Amino acid sequence: MKIYDVEGFPNPARVRIALAEKGATDWVEFVPVDVMNGEHRSAEFKAKNPDAVVPCLELEDGSYIAQCNAITEYIDAEFDGPSLTGKTAKDRARIAMMNLRAENGLLNAVSAYFHHATPGLGPDLETDQCAEWGHKQKHVAARTMAYLDAVLADTAYLAGDEFSVADITAFAGLAFADFAKVEIPATLENLQAWRAKVAARPSIAA
Amino acid sequence: MKIYDVEGFPNPARVRIALAEKGATDWVEFVPVDVMNGEHRSAEFKAKNPDAVVPCLELEDGSYIAQCNAITEYIDAEFDGPSLTGKTAKDRARIAMMNLRAENGLLNAVSAYFHHATPGLGPDLETDQCAEWGHKQKHVAARTMAYLDAVLADTAYLAGDEFSVADITAFAGLAFADFAKVEIPATLENLQAWRAKVAARPSIAA
Repeated sequence: MKIYDVEGFPNPARVRIALAEKGATDWVEFVPVDVMNGEHRSAEFKAKNPDAVVPCLELEDGSYIAQCNAITEYIDAEFDGPSLTGKTAKDRARIAMMNLRAENGLLNAVSAYFHHATPGLGPDLETDQCAEWGHKQKHVAARTMAYLDAVLADTAYLAGDEFSVADITAFAGLAFADFAKVEIPATLENLQAWRAKVAARPSIAA
Repeated sequence: MKIYDVEGFPNPARVRIALAEKGATDWVEFVPVDVMNGEHRSAEFKAKNPDAVVPCLELEDGSYIAQCNAITEYIDAEFDGPSLTGKTAKDRARIAMMNLRAENGLLNAVSAYFHHATPGLGPDLETDQCAEWGHKQKHVAARTMAYLDAVLADTAYLAGDEFSVADITAFAGLAFADFAKVEIPATLENLQAWRAKVAARPSIAA
């Protein structure tokens, strides 16, 4: 399979961490997309992914899977290794819920702040900004960090005792927060300790 | 199980259609939440669902599952009947992708327009509006309708030959569009024909 992405970008990082957790990185050919020069908005790329974002997965049959959660779920189902999305209906639901809270409330909120309320990727790419919305989303990110900190007072990982895609999403969200200069309060000790623990995993530290 | 919701609201409708498709409606106790008077923002409700939105599922063990996609996936896994989220990894990924496109690009876009760029649920509830963002999202909804129409030129349903959660989400999105007075162009003939076909399903027409 192929993955069209940009190394180091937040959503591509989620997919790359998931692959590393499954020991499947070597099964994938990574195809760089020149986002900084707008390649993701070209007709050729939009034929692959009309969302015009990275990452995008190309399967062996030539079909494409976009949307980060769809890609990570496919990776989890396709490769052996520890489950990242859960095995029982209840575990899967809890992980999906926490993953969506981390995505909507943290990663996407930081992204909205970065793309709408800062220069973002520069004037050639940020052509549809709404600064007021971006600033509101920075507050959403702050509230979500406090919520995740409270969750982590009771459990080792965001969806319970096991590492899951929810942790991957939140970890990528915090990395994006650092990049976008959104403060991660030192007082959120559970969140900070969890972050250090996740950062030390071979899928991330290696 | 219990579902806390408001009958007729867009996301609760997604869950109720999924339950009806599975023949599982009678297994659920519906608990009305008085959203119009702010009950969803009470400390009591936020202890169930800190997202402060409906729907929210309560399992037999007293735990809660929020986030509509997590709830519909749980329902699909827990009850017999036709699969709504797919059985193979590839089918599941394609359905998840199309469901997220319908959710982000249509239902959530219409919702953002309604809550931010119109009086929405009224001044007591719409206390954090951003009109510019709402108007931008109306354009996103229009683009997504055109995209879905193009998809439906080739397939019977949004993720292929079988009805799925992607169809449920898009159908709820169009119902919300009607309510919010967002135009669904008559020229989108594939979308209009698909909508009539979905509306005639027993899970919706009954």
